[in-house]
Amino acid sequence: MEDLASLDRVRVVLSHTSHPGNIGGAARAIKTMGLARLVLVNPRRFPDDDAIARASGAEDVLVNARVVESLRQALEGCVLVAAVTARRRELSAPVHWVRDAASELMAAARHGEVALVFGNETSGLSNDEVALAHMPVMIPANPEYSSLNLAAAVQIVCYELRLAAADPGAPPPVSGEGLPAPHEDVDRLVEHFERAMIVSGFLDPASPRRLIPRLRRLFARARIEREEVAILRGMLSAFEQPPGKPD
Amino acid sequence: MEDLASLDRVRVVLSHTSHPGNIGGAARAIKTMGLARLVLVNPRRFPDDDAIARASGAEDVLVNARVVESLRQALEGCVLVAAVTARRRELSAPVHWVRDAASELMAAARHGEVALVFGNETSGLSNDEVALAHMPVMIPANPEYSSLNLAAAVQIVCYELRLAAADPGAPPPVSGEGLPAPHEDVDRLVEHFERAMIVSGFLDPASPRRLIPRLRRLFARARIEREEVAILRGMLSAFEQPPGKPD
Repeated sequence: MEDLASLDRVRVVLSHTSHPGNIGGAARAIKTMGLARLVLVNPRRFPDDDAIARASGAEDVLVNARVVESLRQALEGCVLVAAVTARRRELSAPVHWVRDAASELMAAARHGEVALVFGNETSGLSNDEVALAHMPVMIPANPEYSSLNLAAAVQIVCYELRLAAADPGAPPPVSGEGLPAPHEDVDRLVEHFERAMIVSGFLDPASPRRLIPRLRRLFARARIEREEVAILRGMLSAFEQPPGKPD
Repeated sequence: MEDLASLDRVRVVLSHTSHPGNIGGAARAIKTMGLARLVLVNPRRFPDDDAIARASGAEDVLVNARVVESLRQALEGCVLVAAVTARRRELSAPVHWVRDAASELMAAARHGEVALVFGNETSGLSNDEVALAHMPVMIPANPEYSSLNLAAAVQIVCYELRLAAADPGAPPPVSGEGLPAPHEDVDRLVEHFERAMIVSGFLDPASPRRLIPRLRRLFARARIEREEVAILRGMLSAFEQPPGKPD
């Protein structure tokens, strides 16, 4: 959890967005990844009910959004600016994949403000807008159909920023997870299986095939737990009793 | 570009989806990442105009979607199943982050069918549904607001699957990019700057500060191109001419 606080220094800038629903979707994407700052350059409709509907719990991001008239205003004070684009550009700076760009942006965000710029849903960013950025950024995509929805592109970019800001650590533990069984308990379980299989006639000790090693492999792979060992041993003991004879 | 073909063996399964718009958004997300197979378990409304509108060019994914009545049917034939979930589960298999899960899924997809299951927008997956999967998968998110839109979650998962299937290689080259200037040309450019600065009085050779090393550092960092060297040298020559004297 190195530097999630740096996410506060990231501006997500949407330029000339046509559909307010996408602004709401972007706000939600921003908040899910722990970012907060949305800047809108000349949105066609904002504020708007569609934006609120799609934001779904991230209205605070919309309420705090800055609306400005030019991309230059949106970028004031930024030390590193990336422009998300789906197509190759003439004479731009070298293109970065989003994962690499996210590392660079979060490194810069330790010391200053950074921005990610997204263009209009249909026409994307103009060449003049891309020229204001330090690097064009692309999301790896299907070359035959690379048209990500605007909010979906914001979601991927913010996801990569979050992962670049801080390693998420180990996944959350599963509640109700038991203690792993000690080695000797697993040994006794396997022996119990073997005994019960022989008694039942299922396993012929003269030609044991690979039954027992396979069982052992299964339990090892599953990292069998204490309680599961107890359940299986109880079951084997029950199988060993002749049926229909209560005590 | 190792194994993008394996993406054809990935099923994206949406269980009990309420909003057809999300089905359309998921179809678009799937196609942008080069996947194709959508399975719908008891969608509330499908087919639907909202799904088509949000699919925006990915209608083929909707047309080819399978609609089934139970998650078991959706998973028939799958050798590895992951369930995307936003919360901890009792007694489930160990949780994987989506990036690690994507590697495991694409490794399994070399030899068989795999599936990713997404639950209802509000209630998520039931415990019974998660129990049918080999692993619960989580997307790292803001712990205070982890509610990703369904189509946005599908977008991130499919993005990670695409990257797990194949390294995207170098980013696309910038068209119009020039040839890097050879070392000696940069040397001559820096000398030219120095000369012009001295002649103009801007640089005092007796106390040069660090002007020239800084210029050299700037050009090195920019990997200055041949044509840019030519432009700057032309400019310097013009500055060296006394003004107002044609020829």
